[in-house]
Amino acid sequence: MTAAAETTPTSDRELVLTRIIDAPREKVFRAWTDAELLKQWFAPLPWTTPSAELDVRPGGSSLIVMRDPEGNDYPNRGIYLEVVENEKLVFTDAYTEAWQPSPKPFFTGVLTFEDVDGKTRYTARARHWTVEDRDAHEKMGFHEGWGRCTDQLAALVAKL
Amino acid sequence: MTAAAETTPTSDRELVLTRIIDAPREKVFRAWTDAELLKQWFAPLPWTTPSAELDVRPGGSSLIVMRDPEGNDYPNRGIYLEVVENEKLVFTDAYTEAWQPSPKPFFTGVLTFEDVDGKTRYTARARHWTVEDRDAHEKMGFHEGWGRCTDQLAALVAKL
Repeated sequence: MTAAAETTPTSDRELVLTRIIDAPREKVFRAWTDAELLKQWFAPLPWTTPSAELDVRPGGSSLIVMRDPEGNDYPNRGIYLEVVENEKLVFTDAYTEAWQPSPKPFFTGVLTFEDVDGKTRYTARARHWTVEDRDAHEKMGFHEGWGRCTDQLAALVAKL
Repeated sequence: MTAAAETTPTSDRELVLTRIIDAPREKVFRAWTDAELLKQWFAPLPWTTPSAELDVRPGGSSLIVMRDPEGNDYPNRGIYLEVVENEKLVFTDAYTEAWQPSPKPFFTGVLTFEDVDGKTRYTARARHWTVEDRDAHEKMGFHEGWGRCTDQLAALVAKL
């Protein structure tokens, strides 16, 4: 499989972002799974992430609060579906806890962390249940928003 | 918690069926997880279950084909979310495989198998993402259909 093929969405309901991050994958994985680290990069500035509770195991729940520049808080609840240390992390907002369906399943995030000569090929896939949700997510600024967060993530792990 | 409390739906998006089955819970669990056994009870007669492929592990997929009396086949795809041997089984149609969203997430099944003096308190919860889906499932005959299947399940495990 070529690098180009790896960044192709697997369906018309998927959005995908990929990036080579100049840090070992253990650090990139930690930035996603250690709440104190996640709070430092998760929201695109000037938004912030004042609180994060992460129970990183299959069926474990997460509650991440994002704050806009006016001080309004936006809680995001989800659960982890699959956790392979330093390699893969899968989560969704389709459940608020194991196994209570949320009011609206929007997407499933599939993150992979691949070692490339000590650096990390980081791939984030957002898989939606409908084409409409995928398109709405793109219009909400998926590529720019996740891109900026990935910049923040890369800057943080460079200092770890 | 009383037996009555245990059969109360946990939300207005849930349907629940509970039954004491006169067999140890290991056998009831087996009837759900061994494909050859499942085919013998899963569809309410005169419907049948000509084929079942069950990869019973978190993230494993299932493909169960039900056949109506006219010979039309209805494939059902899903995945297992949680597997606790002889105690609990959780599955959903929200994914067709790990982790590809299905076209329409309809419900999550949460089965518990409790030991009651050598018999099994069997509880099947169907949790939906919307009240509309819960109501539609009830109108499709959830209580009668799952009740008849549970009769068939109980008759099968009595012979194991």
